[in-house]
Amino acid sequence: MAKSSVLILSLCILAFTHRCLSYDPSTDPELQGRRRECELRRISTQQPIRKEVSEAGVTEFWDQFNEQFESAGVAIIRHTIESRGLLLPSYTNAPRLAYISRGRGVIGVMAPGCPETYQSQEESQKGSGQRFRDQHQKIGHYRQGDLIALPAGVAHWCYNDGDEPLVALVFFDTSNDANQLDSNYRRFSLAGNPQEGQRRIVSRKGQEEGSGNNIFGGFDTRILAEAFGVSIETARKLQNPEDQRGHIVRVEGGLEMLSPTLSREQQGREYRRGPNVNGLEETICSSRLIETLADPTRADVYTSQAGRLSSLNSYTLPILEFLQLSVEHGRLYKNAMMAPHCNLNAHSVIYGLRGSARVQIVSERGQAVFDDVLREGDLVIAPQNFALVKQAENQGFEWVAFKTNANAMISTLAGKTSVMRGLPLDVIANAYQISREEASSLKYNREEVTLLAPTYRSSGRSAAA
Amino acid sequence: MAKSSVLILSLCILAFTHRCLSYDPSTDPELQGRRRECELRRISTQQPIRKEVSEAGVTEFWDQFNEQFESAGVAIIRHTIESRGLLLPSYTNAPRLAYISRGRGVIGVMAPGCPETYQSQEESQKGSGQRFRDQHQKIGHYRQGDLIALPAGVAHWCYNDGDEPLVALVFFDTSNDANQLDSNYRRFSLAGNPQEGQRRIVSRKGQEEGSGNNIFGGFDTRILAEAFGVSIETARKLQNPEDQRGHIVRVEGGLEMLSPTLSREQQGREYRRGPNVNGLEETICSSRLIETLADPTRADVYTSQAGRLSSLNSYTLPILEFLQLSVEHGRLYKNAMMAPHCNLNAHSVIYGLRGSARVQIVSERGQAVFDDVLREGDLVIAPQNFALVKQAENQGFEWVAFKTNANAMISTLAGKTSVMRGLPLDVIANAYQISREEASSLKYNREEVTLLAPTYRSSGRSAAA
Amino acid sequence: MAKSSVLILSLCILAFTHRCLSYDPSTDPELQGRRRECELRRISTQQPIRKEVSEAGVTEFWDQFNEQFESAGVAIIRHTIESRGLLLPSYTNAPRLAYISRGRGVIGVMAPGCPETYQSQEESQKGSGQRFRDQHQKIGHYRQGDLIALPAGVAHWCYNDGDEPLVALVFFDTSNDANQLDSNYRRFSLAGNPQEGQRRIVSRKGQEEGSGNNIFGGFDTRILAEAFGVSIETARKLQNPEDQRGHIVRVEGGLEMLSPTLSREQQGREYRRGPNVNGLEETICSSRLIETLADPTRADVYTSQAGRLSSLNSYTLPILEFLQLSVEHGRLYKNAMMAPHCNLNAHSVIYGLRGSARVQIVSERGQAVFDDVLREGDLVIAPQNFALVKQAENQGFEWVAFKTNANAMISTLAGKTSVMRGLPLDVIANAYQISREEASSLKYNREEVTLLAPTYRSSGRSAAA
Repeated sequence: MAKSSVLILSLCILAFTHRCLSYDPSTDPELQGRRRECELRRISTQQPIRKEVSEAGVTEFWDQFNEQFESAGVAIIRHTIESRGLLLPSYTNAPRLAYISRGRGVIGVMAPGCPETYQSQEESQKGSGQRFRDQHQKIGHYRQGDLIALPAGVAHWCYNDGDEPLVALVFFDTSNDANQLDSNYRRFSLAGNPQEGQRRIVSRKGQEEGSGNNIFGGFDTRILAEAFGVSIETARKLQNPEDQRGHIVRVEGGLEMLSPTLSREQQGREYRRGPNVNGLEETICSSRLIETLADPTRADVYTSQAGRLSSLNSYTLPILEFLQLSVEHGRLYKNAMMAPHCNLNAHSVIYGLRGSARVQIVSERGQAVFDDVLREGDLVIAPQNFALVKQAENQGFEWVAFKTNANAMISTLAGKTSVMRGLPLDVIANAYQISREEASSLKYNREEVTLLAPTYRSSGRSAAA
Repeated sequence: MAKSSVLILSLCILAFTHRCLSYDPSTDPELQGRRRECELRRISTQQPIRKEVSEAGVTEFWDQFNEQFESAGVAIIRHTIESRGLLLPSYTNAPRLAYISRGRGVIGVMAPGCPETYQSQEESQKGSGQRFRDQHQKIGHYRQGDLIALPAGVAHWCYNDGDEPLVALVFFDTSNDANQLDSNYRRFSLAGNPQEGQRRIVSRKGQEEGSGNNIFGGFDTRILAEAFGVSIETARKLQNPEDQRGHIVRVEGGLEMLSPTLSREQQGREYRRGPNVNGLEETICSSRLIETLADPTRADVYTSQAGRLSSLNSYTLPILEFLQLSVEHGRLYKNAMMAPHCNLNAHSVIYGLRGSARVQIVSERGQAVFDDVLREGDLVIAPQNFALVKQAENQGFEWVAFKTNANAMISTLAGKTSVMRGLPLDVIANAYQISREEASSLKYNREEVTLLAPTYRSSGRSAAA
Repeated sequence: MAKSSVLILSLCILAFTHRCLSYDPSTDPELQGRRRECELRRISTQQPIRKEVSEAGVTEFWDQFNEQFESAGVAIIRHTIESRGLLLPSYTNAPRLAYISRGRGVIGVMAPGCPETYQSQEESQKGSGQRFRDQHQKIGHYRQGDLIALPAGVAHWCYNDGDEPLVALVFFDTSNDANQLDSNYRRFSLAGNPQEGQRRIVSRKGQEEGSGNNIFGGFDTRILAEAFGVSIETARKLQNPEDQRGHIVRVEGGLEMLSPTLSREQQGREYRRGPNVNGLEETICSSRLIETLADPTRADVYTSQAGRLSSLNSYTLPILEFLQLSVEHGRLYKNAMMAPHCNLNAHSVIYGLRGSARVQIVSERGQAVFDDVLREGDLVIAPQNFALVKQAENQGFEWVAFKTNANAMISTLAGKTSVMRGLPLDVIANAYQISREEASSLKYNREEVTLLAPTYRSSGRSAAA
């Protein structure tokens, strides 16, 4: 038993490495040609720097060349897909986690080797009067508060089947072991054409300004025609060089597809209850890829005066073991605090969903490399091991944090289960040159776990316990 | 069950990382000191650039400093060993896969801690009239079409016991996790002396031109004599500084060694049926290291009009789990095509064995970074995720492809099991702005899996299904 | 069975990578912007270069910017803690192995999520007359010859409860996958203040000379007060900016803590026999972190005339699977030799504990990159795959070697179980152009495993066996 536990732990740690947090590369000539030092002396909140406007939506890009992103080896984009908008099929060179911050939608994932398990018994009919029988790989439904996890290289499409815009914050782990290319974020489009916005984010160099195409655009049209057994004209439509709609297109009349009929309430849950046809198919084909994250009834930590904290990791969403990523969602009530802590084994990419909080991040020198207010739409990266505290302001604070480890752990410095609780009283007294009475108050005054209610006072309590 | 599947999948992905495909490093001063961008805008076929001529054979080296090799983190050499030629014992800093493209031979692998399981009951006799009883580690037989897999650091020797030259294409994964040195290919010779040819490939710098030795050459001769309990003269022969034969030497009269006597037909199979003495020895000592790859009767995919495809991965040759590598062998008939596809989780190092094919490789910008004919002896590296198509010319095409993942997967874009098949018809119609009829022909016209027969026409078919 | 063996082997190899042993980076302008070549043409013994003097002890730092350390991706420090000295709580960004070369002590490890399992039934009493009941996480006892293994990010404190100084050599694997920051060694202090000594070692750049603090120093004092529920004054003591004692402080009167009462003889063993409360706690909370290494009665290899060799790896100390590290302790008697060998899958950081030995390290060019005497307190790094020999001088030699693989393996070139033993006689004869008689003496003259007794002669023996 101990053996397998250790094995599982070791797997958690194995996958992520060599993210150099090189915020301030040395200019010392002695260091040229050596491993760069990463100083980490300043971190700042980040907003998107570029925008790609499509027919039925907008994609915003954070600057992946910003030192924080480059150093942590991650990239972030945000899709806003209008009602009846279809995000065209594509795949990327990095595993991704998408948090649905608004709306609802449908996703289709085309994993190689997986069967087309959604089949029409009756023929569908549309427009032209012709009838088509169809079958395709399974599709999943999701809505606000859900997380979607996708492996690198797996093609997918998304569709907003709701009435309001669908907003998804998408995290790419470009330095994941699954990516053997360099750590640039690369989107391989199967349809549509990459726009200026994406091209710019892919590279800042001048010579990239030529036209981008979907990947069919790079093949000889005759080869494509033969590969698909279609006419040259149809093959040319695959390449579609004149398509100006961008990668989110409008589906007039709505998208028709096969889907089990469920009451609205059940829909969000269907994808992950797909029947496992047999044991041999228990692979990525039948992995659960969508899971609820923000549901208050599933909180891992709940303090009635302070807030709640939920997470998805390899134990609660097994595909995350494969991706070596995990995610946390938190909600702090007015003036409540998430106890000072460090991310033991992962970087943490924190995105403000609602409200605001004062956040401090402290380096190993004991200096605050970040001390600012994080608001809705702001993003900050807390490096592994750095100490961190969040205190909600008057509106409370809600956030999602993507973490570069399948089982990211935090080590709290205050409260129950904290490092301080694990220390013998006499070590505390000697370490801080304080009385055993003060040591006892440091150790025992806070009884909450991780999330701390506001106290409305600044004077100490007498020793409890 | 699902858990262990995911675990296995995750192991497949874990091992390879940080191969920067930096074909075109940026010269933008803004980017100095940051992670290099890897532009991947041109890929070309590669031939060997240097040759090391030995007494009984030739070794050719591809340029490991070429951007394609350097970026993918791999190295390639090709041995041609004459009949009765012995490749002297050595080990390298990277795991290797060798594909035998011609001839047959014998290999001895000296894995540390493994017993000498080949023992002579009777005494052998030779030349001098003296008799020697001998025992040594097991040896394996292989022939054309076989693959040999060896872990990093494990010493081995090879011998051509056939009548025709033995030709082996050897792939080294220098960026494998098993290599903690830099990603240069390093051969540590236990006998003979490295030649100019190898030294040049090891480094292009001028100061390397001094003499190379086998590793015994670097030790004090007296220490060697004591370590082996032999005379100074014998120790000096270990170092053998005057040996000019190179690392493939001729064995006059043929090499004598212990080997189970089998009919010729059985020989190729012996190595991997070695008895497992007990459960405790089920380690690298008894791992199967040789397996047939090119045998038509073992094809994974076979289309009577198009060709066949075989592969060895961690499920069919378990040592590949340890090496985190896999291999594919393919044969396309005249004008047949391997469907457009991408390598989902690995780079693919493709080497032409016979005939020729037009190959196109397409980047995430939809641009062909490679569009050329690949002929016998040519090599090209298809980066992970890049789209790829092969169409055989009039002579057909046969190739072997080394892949940097223990279970490399491809995702086909056309044909049965393709991404296109996984898409709902209406998504295809909307994505490419085509009718549902055309969408249906794109999706269903090709019924073959991966390998597509030539169609001899360029007009489309009507919707099938 | 074979499957799981291979799996375990593969895990051993997976974790370490991309340590570029770039001792001599190329200055060839052609190579600018490419992967550096690592020449490895000279290696030298290393001593500490800086010292941090604290109230009750000294910490010495090896130069982590030295090419050997930087390239192998490791850092080394040595603590000398006086009797009643307390090493203040801290954590680092890299997993660590500490070898206790002198004295004895106590360690407390604060792993997040682990319970406070040491509880006082009665109240303890001290100084002020007040009584405190306390509970804290378990503590461990260790003494000379023990190894302590700690994961990255886990906070701990140490205390010398003996009468003589406690000396610990601490190895940090800064390029371990567990560290997602850059490969600088970073100590996050929970108390005390980092001193000039440490700051200097962290960076050689001029601008770092500002004051360092413990991590509480970077937080707003009011937030701290609220987080701990204490007064501003107490919070200020946590930050403790005026503390000049360094990170090893004296505990007047001795540290009081909860600990099972054992006879002195049993103490060293207690930590690792902690009861596993239930199966769910068989995690890091109940992992054995301390184990005897240097105990002669536990030797893995023992040759009565030559010496002994012990090691701890993932099979003997399972936490090492998680850390992906292992360790070897050796003792050579006067003039005895450790057979020429190479480290198959790990770098080896060798530290001289007592006596001296002549050590030769040979590169793949067959050149000695190191040929020197290693004395007590000297350290040298033998790169993976490089050939290595050690011969004790007149005082014998005792060493500890840290290895960057959970199951580091060596491949010996001479003696029983050596590569030479695995070769057929005829391969040896042909490889070195020697008679079968000489080949037989090379192969069979030494019957010992790994450790070779001095022979006192330099002439060969006749063929044995």
